[in-house]
Amino acid sequence: MYDIRPHEIAVPIPAPDDARLYFIGRIHTPWNDRKDCPRQGRTDGPECRIEIFEPWVPALQGIEDYESVEVLYWLNKARRDLIVQNPSHSERTYGTFALRSPVRPNPIGTVLAKLISVDGPNLIVRGLDCLNGTPLIDLKPDRCAFSPKAPPKP
Amino acid sequence: MYDIRPHEIAVPIPAPDDARLYFIGRIHTPWNDRKDCPRQGRTDGPECRIEIFEPWVPALQGIEDYESVEVLYWLNKARRDLIVQNPSHSERTYGTFALRSPVRPNPIGTVLAKLISVDGPNLIVRGLDCLNGTPLIDLKPDRCAFSPKAPPKP
Repeated sequence: MYDIRPHEIAVPIPAPDDARLYFIGRIHTPWNDRKDCPRQGRTDGPECRIEIFEPWVPALQGIEDYESVEVLYWLNKARRDLIVQNPSHSERTYGTFALRSPVRPNPIGTVLAKLISVDGPNLIVRGLDCLNGTPLIDLKPDRCAFSPKAPPKP
Repeated sequence: MYDIRPHEIAVPIPAPDDARLYFIGRIHTPWNDRKDCPRQGRTDGPECRIEIFEPWVPALQGIEDYESVEVLYWLNKARRDLIVQNPSHSERTYGTFALRSPVRPNPIGTVLAKLISVDGPNLIVRGLDCLNGTPLIDLKPDRCAFSPKAPPKP
């Protein structure tokens, strides 16, 4: 658990239960300790593997048409009660929503990853920065490359 | 509830409970019926209001420094069990992860919105496409404009 730093502000919060998630897969990266993770993924970073669990594997059909995919994952080790943070003792504090820190009320990370290949339930990608074993919650085509498949509305 | 279309595939799934979410706010848009929502938000679209709930309002500190913010929201009316979809009777089917459809195992929408102004618990933005009243689950600085506030790792 991340400890609180000087000038950080935590708030009392109830247990969350407004909505519930499925873990639909698992992300395999070279980083087994938080201190080893890069602060931001780079598309020239190492290849990582995204494993999709059943029954979701057929939902990958067509994803190979995209050069980049948006990956949503669950930062299951992050505390959720900080509203103001002090990133590694920087000179000032920031509100949680002005940071991309894993510490946030709903610890969801998003990244745009470069899609290298798809093989059955596995995607090989570059550009991730999360811990090995991180739970996957969604995959979408890059919004910039995606055109709606249904006709425009009148 | 969205009905299933020809050639779509639904799978039996248990109730989700791998992780739980807070609704941290609510999104106010001009669209009260799904058929009126644009298929994709546009930064020249109408101004919309994102309302943050307590105790999270102080977590906005510093967000006004960004021209665009990533908005994550919960598509609470979408079914979650389709793995293959047929977008408005298009000519072929697509896997759910090759679409940005609201119908997905974890119905989380993401959009990059243009930040117009911040006033207390309210943000005025452009570029949304969701229904009026949609629950908010996260706000982050645009990843392209954001630099980590902590020093680079050695």
